[in-house]
This record gives sequence, structure tokens and C-alpha cells, in this order.
Amino acid sequence: MRKVPMSDLQSMAHAIRFLAMDAIERVGEGHQGVPLGMAEIATALYARHLKFDPSDPTWLDRDRVVLSNGHGSMLLYALNYLSGYTKIDIDAVRTFRELNSHCAGHPEIDQTAGIEMTTGLLGQGVASAVGMAVAEARLATRYPGLVNHRTWVFLGDGCLEEGMGQEAISLAGHLKLGKLTLLWDDNAITDDGATSLAISEDIPARFEAAHWHVQSVDGHDIEAVSAAMGAAKADPRPSMIACRTSIARGIARIEGRRAGHSGRITREDTDAARTALGWSAPAFEVPDDVLDAWRASGRRGARTNAAWREALSSDPQADMFLAALSGTGETWRMPLEASARALVGREQSTVHSSGEVCEAMREDFDGLQILCADLEAPTDHKRGRDAFTADDRSGSYVHCGVREHLMAAMANGIASHGGLYPVPVTYFAFTDYMRAAIRMAGLMGLPGLFVLSHDSIGVGRNGPTHQPVETLAGFRAMPNVLMMRPADGVETAEAWEIALERRTGPVLLALTKQAVPPVRNEASENRSRRGAYVLVEPATGDRDATILATGSEVFVALRAQSILADEGICAAVVSMPCWELFAEQDADYRAQVLGQAPRFAVEAAVRFGWDQWIGTEGGFVGMTGYGASAAAETLYDHFGITPERVAETVRRTVSKA
Amino acid sequence: MRKVPMSDLQSMAHAIRFLAMDAIERVGEGHQGVPLGMAEIATALYARHLKFDPSDPTWLDRDRVVLSNGHGSMLLYALNYLSGYTKIDIDAVRTFRELNSHCAGHPEIDQTAGIEMTTGLLGQGVASAVGMAVAEARLATRYPGLVNHRTWVFLGDGCLEEGMGQEAISLAGHLKLGKLTLLWDDNAITDDGATSLAISEDIPARFEAAHWHVQSVDGHDIEAVSAAMGAAKADPRPSMIACRTSIARGIARIEGRRAGHSGRITREDTDAARTALGWSAPAFEVPDDVLDAWRASGRRGARTNAAWREALSSDPQADMFLAALSGTGETWRMPLEASARALVGREQSTVHSSGEVCEAMREDFDGLQILCADLEAPTDHKRGRDAFTADDRSGSYVHCGVREHLMAAMANGIASHGGLYPVPVTYFAFTDYMRAAIRMAGLMGLPGLFVLSHDSIGVGRNGPTHQPVETLAGFRAMPNVLMMRPADGVETAEAWEIALERRTGPVLLALTKQAVPPVRNEASENRSRRGAYVLVEPATGDRDATILATGSEVFVALRAQSILADEGICAAVVSMPCWELFAEQDADYRAQVLGQAPRFAVEAAVRFGWDQWIGTEGGFVGMTGYGASAAAETLYDHFGITPERVAETVRRTVSKA
Repeated sequence: MRKVPMSDLQSMAHAIRFLAMDAIERVGEGHQGVPLGMAEIATALYARHLKFDPSDPTWLDRDRVVLSNGHGSMLLYALNYLSGYTKIDIDAVRTFRELNSHCAGHPEIDQTAGIEMTTGLLGQGVASAVGMAVAEARLATRYPGLVNHRTWVFLGDGCLEEGMGQEAISLAGHLKLGKLTLLWDDNAITDDGATSLAISEDIPARFEAAHWHVQSVDGHDIEAVSAAMGAAKADPRPSMIACRTSIARGIARIEGRRAGHSGRITREDTDAARTALGWSAPAFEVPDDVLDAWRASGRRGARTNAAWREALSSDPQADMFLAALSGTGETWRMPLEASARALVGREQSTVHSSGEVCEAMREDFDGLQILCADLEAPTDHKRGRDAFTADDRSGSYVHCGVREHLMAAMANGIASHGGLYPVPVTYFAFTDYMRAAIRMAGLMGLPGLFVLSHDSIGVGRNGPTHQPVETLAGFRAMPNVLMMRPADGVETAEAWEIALERRTGPVLLALTKQAVPPVRNEASENRSRRGAYVLVEPATGDRDATILATGSEVFVALRAQSILADEGICAAVVSMPCWELFAEQDADYRAQVLGQAPRFAVEAAVRFGWDQWIGTEGGFVGMTGYGASAAAETLYDHFGITPERVAETVRRTVSKA
Repeated sequence: MRKVPMSDLQSMAHAIRFLAMDAIERVGEGHQGVPLGMAEIATALYARHLKFDPSDPTWLDRDRVVLSNGHGSMLLYALNYLSGYTKIDIDAVRTFRELNSHCAGHPEIDQTAGIEMTTGLLGQGVASAVGMAVAEARLATRYPGLVNHRTWVFLGDGCLEEGMGQEAISLAGHLKLGKLTLLWDDNAITDDGATSLAISEDIPARFEAAHWHVQSVDGHDIEAVSAAMGAAKADPRPSMIACRTSIARGIARIEGRRAGHSGRITREDTDAARTALGWSAPAFEVPDDVLDAWRASGRRGARTNAAWREALSSDPQADMFLAALSGTGETWRMPLEASARALVGREQSTVHSSGEVCEAMREDFDGLQILCADLEAPTDHKRGRDAFTADDRSGSYVHCGVREHLMAAMANGIASHGGLYPVPVTYFAFTDYMRAAIRMAGLMGLPGLFVLSHDSIGVGRNGPTHQPVETLAGFRAMPNVLMMRPADGVETAEAWEIALERRTGPVLLALTKQAVPPVRNEASENRSRRGAYVLVEPATGDRDATILATGSEVFVALRAQSILADEGICAAVVSMPCWELFAEQDADYRAQVLGQAPRFAVEAAVRFGWDQWIGTEGGFVGMTGYGASAAAETLYDHFGITPERVAETVRRTVSKA
């Protein structure tokens, strides 16, 4: 490696290298492999190609950068400090991995600090980047003078070993997302040692099979990398640049070795690197001329940004564009409310009701991006929408193929990009494939509505692999994720409204395959907003019991109430579409809904978690294990999730009291 | 398609076709696309190549068949009926998709009926088949005269669009699993319509990039398919046979069309198919000569089986082999108990204790198959083990690469194959990638020990992406999965014992990264077996409080108890390594452990589910949201998971009482 005390590109790369190693050495842990190995690649990108403006980090038409190999977070922090993002100052770098530092162990989304998204679980970044590229392509068609930027992804072998990496390659190639460029840190080392321990395939050939533009360069040759980036920009296909690198480049003891990944480095290592590379600046200091060069790179985009602002100010679509990007456009509200009213009294599956709500707002609101994993017919959310394809970017519906995990991560990319509201659609059981990406949405606080049909044994004959029983509990436990299970069409429309209003986290909608009778005879007020509400009080007298239910079982509870009423037992029925929203209500409201009488719950799922609402003594009618393959009605009988069983459970307790 | 009323291979294929369409037509739903499209492929396999013996379905050295496109279940049922598995009689076929039929909507594991594993979630089958092939290869080396069989996989586009499909291709190619053959139903149609809606890559090239043997044939030409199978058997690489097929072949109205996948078929369709193909047998009847030909095919393997039994009877390793295959070999028990004793009083991370237990039994017990997803060093379960590689099949450790989902599905394949006990190892947070496969283990009732380290904010500076907070709850809710969280080395050894004894479902072990002090000073009895037990009763007097805790927080509870004792408050501490086992205990035991005093819990995770044990009024010290990036000790303080906070919570309640 050239020793370079001059303010050229190589020095700029070394500035990344030394900031990274000093920060990692100081705190005693971290992953030096990526920042030391990708310093030249990153320099080529930020100094030559990236469209960005650190003085305006959230510039809407900026290029997006995703560090999919998020363990190499110091690469991003060094870049952001050097190029002039004020939130990432030298103190932030110095407190790398300390509590409340902007420089966390893995990047945590803060777009005002130049961190586009949270990464660290391998594969998530590159898959989300596909979503960003889709959002850009559709918005570029919709707002031609205002949207024209690229998505760049740093990634390592891990992201390409993960299956979702292949899902991303496959769909991005299919959709010809030409503004997406992957920068592969081909260092042949993973945590276990040589990548050859676990992989021997021809990775570039895998990209070529999916019709990518593939180049291979020396990742430490800034000019070569820069030329490849230029070629990538010129090619209409998505591009993958295989950058051959030496992991932990610059620290001779570990360079190119297993310990290069994240082995502990010491002051002796950083001293030796300084000697070897002729870098005389002390730890956390960058020579003035090098910092000046970096800051100049950071100012490259200012003029383009100014020109863009100028264009925006005279664009006839400017208001609409800004409303879309800020999520404040509410042209969806009137059609949504109208569809809620139209759904009053209608007996149909809640997934069809959801499809109807979705369709109702299609013409007035073009801010939805529906994604669906090969279940268009049974999930029913395409209707009048056009597909987003390689040839037509205007479509609001992406056929994602049988790639649920990618789809969920794409939703995160779309949401973090801004301008479109993502709606991934599939079966509820398949969320087991998407859980990591949904958690990322909760962790990042990204909006999105996950439409998840076939939500219980109501699936019927397809059997237990396709019948969720523990899935509701699994997501109710997940922080900052609203798990909703509406009882009928009206509650489904209410859930949509809650989702579209919510900018701080995703909403999951568990919906039925089977038709359900309506339980609401009005849609005047969004009652689901409080999470749970009294659907029916006893006609006469105080409550003898309160029956809580969700989704398709609310009607079961109503029928049980009626059976009990005939016997003189007064039960209230509470519909509880969202536990999390109910838990946020004040204590008085909760007490009023839950009541003083013995409590019961009915839900075609396991009891796990219900004790929070019905107490350990509360009666529960639901599932105790996995489902079975038979007609839905047969299964409800077989597993005893019936009005009669609920009534019997209530009767047994109440008559004892 | 040739009309064939003769008892040749084509008639045999048609027998599959008509049984499938009759069963699907009768019940009014199902997926005819696969059985009608793959009838010739399946006939070539079962009539010519498959090593099996329907009169002895669980013959240990049989070839394994996996229907990865499990929605095409009627293909398997038709094959099993025709070839003579007595459990799949014509009544079973006739009751396809009815409650308690052996012919469920998707195949449900029953090896005595020729159903090797449950499939239906796309990708699971092919990934599990990699595990079967690994098991075969290792056992073939270990028991050379007794194990020599192949693994055949039926699969469709969906399994290849799913990311885990690529994970399987990649690792199988790397490990040169030459006895694995995939039969790809290349029909260019999915549920949404043409596959070209969502995929356009060169799939054979993807296999070639991973060093597979790839052939392409007309999937309706039985001789061509059979020849390709022969070539696959002769090639040392894993083989993929791309079989070009016409979906729903035989029903002209839907053949080759979207509706071919699972569109409703009628009596008119089946009548028309009979006319077109010259098939005169009524529904559910197979012409005698055709059935005879099929039954003869089913008897092909009987002589080989007899010879194998002969070889077994004279093999010096026969007893060991049979013990391994039945899971009754218990040479692990003595070394395990010894390691439990050795761990008494030792302060170290529970993942290191687990590594120690695992290592202790290495020499005496060769039945473990450790799998690890690129985290050898931090998870510490390789130690003295050799790797299982393309060149050396004797290794008990597979470097799975960064492919967690594949790894978990491989574990299911290894367990369903038999003869080896799978131990997948990774970080607990990464179970979000594995959840679907772990659910499959629970659903199938397959054994396996999932070693999951870095189980809480104790992860420290790597931050919230890597810190589980809701993961314990997510798996506690999952039926037939034991979620264990041991407190120290002794409890870790106890969990291993419980796992190795358990043949009816998987055990998940959440383990710490950070060192934890010992809480047990003896290992004379496996106390974890009851799920929860009183670790310490108050030195004097009745309980004022009971503090429940798991894992690393048991020591926090002990410290709190000691603080409280100094103030005269008498608290018991209950260690609760496994909720599910505790729930199985009799009511007296549970009441005795939980006690009458107010209850509290401390766990570095969300409260969700704890109300079951502490009641809604119980005090809880834990997490309320995601973690953060900082040193572990800092985080425990930051989130208030400390002895002082537990003591304060108890004190507040008890002093009120």
C-alpha cells in the first residue's frame, strides 16, 4: 500500500482507516475488517460519485447509501464525519459503541446524520435497498423533474450467503433496477476464517444468471473502483462491482487473516499501521489538508441540491411531492371513510374487505406501494392496480415472487426512502419468514401495513403448516409493532386508517380467509383506535361476565352472549383488535372495558399472553397446539372454538360464583 | 400425450394423474398442478430408481424422498398408495383433505406411511434434504456396509425463489453432496400466473455456479427422465434435473395455464381427461394390470432390503448402528453428568459451559451433528471436532456459512433421517431467520438442540439488532418447543440432558455471551427437569415474596434476596429455566414453588407472558422495548435490571401489604 502524506484520494482513504482503527482500538472492540478493507471503495464513492449534501442530510433527491455489512459501522461514521455531517462530530466517533453515541455498534437509522437505515442482520440492508430502488423508480416516473437518484450498497460475503441476498439479486435483476449498485467487499474472510470453509460458488456468475451488470476490480485501486462506478452508472442493468480487497488492510498483523474481521486490536497495531503507512496524525486527528479535501467532497453536491431546490420551487407538482415525501398527503382519507361505511353489515372475509379498502383509495391516493409474494388471487389486493415492471415504473403493485423475506425488507426500504407507503401482502403463517424484517421496522420505527391473511385454523384444508396458532402472540410481544386483528369489514377499514396515520412503526393486520359476519352496524367513529371497546353490553342488569375476543371469534363471542342471555346470564362482549393500543389507554378506560365481572377470552390461537387481560383465573377458549387439515367449520368444531363452548365456559364459572 | 390403456410406464403415470384429479375433484380443492405435471417424473423415479420397500417403510437404508412443493401432496399419496404402503389405502386417498385422513392437505410426517417429513412452506423441504444428505454421508462413512442411500427432492419454482433454496444450493454444491438429486418441476407457472411475472433468471446457471451437475429434460418423457436420473446417480456432484413440464397436464381446460396450479376442477374436467387419455377406469379405481405393475415396482426393493438385513445381522457394528438410529444410544450420559459436576461453582458464560458439555461427550458419543452459521469462535462448540467437508465425511461439525435458515431446516432433515442428533448453533437474535424451520421441528415433533447464545442485552455494544428482548416470548408461545434459559453451567448441563432425552420435539437453549456467577453448588439431581424449582427459601420465616428469574437474571434475583434479607424481608428465589416443563408439573408442585406470597419476576426481556406466573398484579423487572449499544454492565444499569431495582420493587409491594 502506498504511503501517502499528501491530500490525495489515498490519503482520504487512510483518514477513514485511521479513524476506524482508533475508535475500535479505544473502545476495545468492533469490526475493523470492513472499514479498513473498504476505505478506498468508499472514498471513490463519496469523493467522486455520490450525490449528497451533508449540509442538508435529508435532501429528498440524495443518493441512498446502505451499509448492509453493518458490523463495519465505523466505515459509515468515518465517512459521515469526514464529509461533514455535523451530527457525526469527532466526539461521536470517539465515543463509538458508548451509550447514546451517534456511533452505535451497528448503524441505527438517523437520516439527519447520514444513516439511511439500521443494519447489522446480514442481508437486510441489500434487500431493503431493492425497496429503495423501487421507490425511486416509481417516484421518478411520477415526479420526473424531482426524483433521479441512485442506491449504493456496501456488502460482504455474509449478505450474499444469506438467502435473502439471493432473493434481492433475483428480483432486482428481473425488475432491471438500473440505479442500484452493489459494492461487494470480496475479501474471502468471514468470522470463521476463509470463506472457502462454507462457500465455493462463483458469485459473479450468480449475478450474471440474474442479468446483472457485473464488474470485477481491485478494491484498493481507487481509480479502478471509480471507473467501475462510472460504468455502473452508465449501464441500464443493476450493477454489482466485485471489489477484491484485503480484510483489515493496513494492520499487518491481521490483514488478510481471520482476526482481521473483528479480532481485538491494540495500540501497538495502530502505531505499527501509522509507521507502515506514513501517517503521523495522532489518534482521532485528521491532517488539515486531508480533512479539507474531504469537506470539499462533502460540498460537491451543494450546487446540485440548490439547482434541485430551484426546480422544486417552480414544479407544478411540488406541493403534492412534498406532501408525499413527508407522509402528510391525506387524499386517502375520504375514500377510506367511504369504504368503511360501505362495509357496514357486509359478510365477507376480512382480507377481501381489506382489498376493497385498498382499491377504494386507488384513484385518489397514489401513495400506496403494494407488494405481494405470489398470492394475488387469494389475498385480493391487486384489483385495478397495474404492476410495477421493468418496462413500466408507474405500477403500484409489485409481484415479488415467492420471496416473503425480501418483500418485508423491501417495505422497510420503501418506508425509509419516503414518498410511498408500503403494503406487503401475504399469508399470516409466512410471517415466520419475514420476522427479522418486521422486527427491523419496529426497531427503526418505520411505517408500513403488513396485510396478512389466512390467519387461523380458518385456513381449513391446507392444514397446520399454513395455520397460525402462536403467531399473534409472537408479534404482540414485539416492541413498537401494532398487531391488529379486525373482526369485520368496518374494523378492517379502521385498522387501515390507524396504519396510514401511524408514522412511527408498522401495523400488522391478521385477516381471515373465510367469510365472517359483520359485528359492527355503524362506522361513525373509529372505535378500533382505543385497541378494545365494548361491542355489546348486557341488555339488562350488571355484567356477570365479560367476553373478550378478536377477529373471526368476535362473532363467536356474540353468539355465546346470546346463548347466555337466554339463560339469564348477562355477558358483555369486548372486541379487542389491538392489545398494544388498548394497553396505551388510561386506567379508567381500561377498567371500564374490562369490567369487574369474571373475564373470558376466545381466540383461535394459543392462550399465551391472554392472562394479561383475563388474569390467570380467566377462562379461555382457543387452541392448545397446532391445527389440522380439514374444512374450516370442521376444525372450529374439532378444536371446540364454538359459541356453545364459550357459553359453557362462562356458565361454569358464573354459576359457581 | 399418448393414450395408453396398456400397463406400461405411461399408464402408471396416468394412474397417478387420475387418482390425484379424482381426489381433488371430490373434495373440491387442492393443487392438481404438481401431481398432473410430475406424474411421469415420479413414475420414472419410483419404477426405476428409488430404493425403497413399501412393506418395510422405515427400512433404515431406504432412499429418502422429499416433496418440497408440498402443496402437490396428492403426488405423494398416489405414489404411496400405488406402490403399496398399506397406510395409504384407497380410503385414505378418497378422504384427501378430510379430518384425520392420512392424506392431509400438505404432507404430514409419518414415515410408516412413506411420508418422510412435513412440507408445504416452500423451501423447507429442499433445505431439510441437505440435512438428510449430510446425515447419510456421515453415517455412510461411520457404518460403511450399512448406509448407502440417496435423497430425492421434488420441487417447484417457489422453492427456488425462496432464499433458503439458494442457501441449500450453495452449501450442497460446496459440500459435494453427490447423493442428493433435485427434480425441478419447470412448468413456468405459479399461483400468480406466468413465472415471468417475478423471475427471469437462468436457474440452471445458478446451480452451475454452485458446481452442481445440471441436466435438462422433457419432464413428460419417462425414458428421458429416467436416463437423467441414471446420469445423476453416476455423477459425483449433487444433481439438478430441470424437467420441462406442462402444469396440470391432462386437463385441457387448465393445462399450462394459471388455473392449473390450484384452480377448482370439476367432474366435467375429469371426464374430459378420461376421454382424452383413453382412461376408462372409474374414479378412485386403478386398472388391475396397472396396479399390478405399480405393486411390482413397490416390490423391487424387497430383495435389496433382505440382503441389507442379512448384512446387518453379521455386521460387528450392528448394535451400535441400531442404537444410533433409534436414538437409544446413551453413551453421552456419563460424560454429560461428569461435565455437570465439573461445572459446579464455575463462573463463565453459559454458552461456554454448553461448549464444554458438548466437548465432554465428543469421544464417547459420536451421535451429535453440530451445525454452526459462521460463529465458531463466539459460540465455542467446535473445540476438538473435525469439520464435515467435501473430502472428509467423518466430521461432526458443519460450517454452514451465514445461512441460519438453511441450518435450522438441515437440523430437521438430520433428525427426520435419524442416526444423528442435530445441534444448530448461532446467536439467539438470529432465530428470527430460523423461526419457520423451528416451528416445523415443533410441528413434526423432531428432536434437536438449538444452541442460541448472546441471549439478551448482555450482548452489549453490538446493540439492539443483536439483542433479543421478545424472542423468549415468541418461542414460549410456540407449541411443542421447549424454550430453556439456564442460569449457570449446571443448569446448562441439565438442559442438555433434557434435550438428549427428548425425542418428541426440539429444545431451544438461550445462553449468555457474558460470564455469569454460578447459582448451583451441586449437580446431584437434574432440577431443571421440573421446569422451575425453589433455588433458595428464606433462611428464616415464611415467604414475604417469591422472586422468579431465568438465566443470567437468577443471580440478580439472588442478590436482591440478600439485600431484602438484610432488611428483614423474606424472599424465596425460584429458578425457572423452562416454562413449558413447569406447566406440565402437577398443581401441588406448582403451588409449592410459586408460593402464596406476592410474586415478582426478573428477566432481561419483555414482560409478555409472565402474567401467567406472577399474575397481573405481580411486579416485573425487565425490558419494555429494544436494547441499545453500550457495554453490557452499562445496559443492565441503564435499563434498571439490577438487584437494587428488584429489591425496591419487592419492598414497595411487601411494605404496602
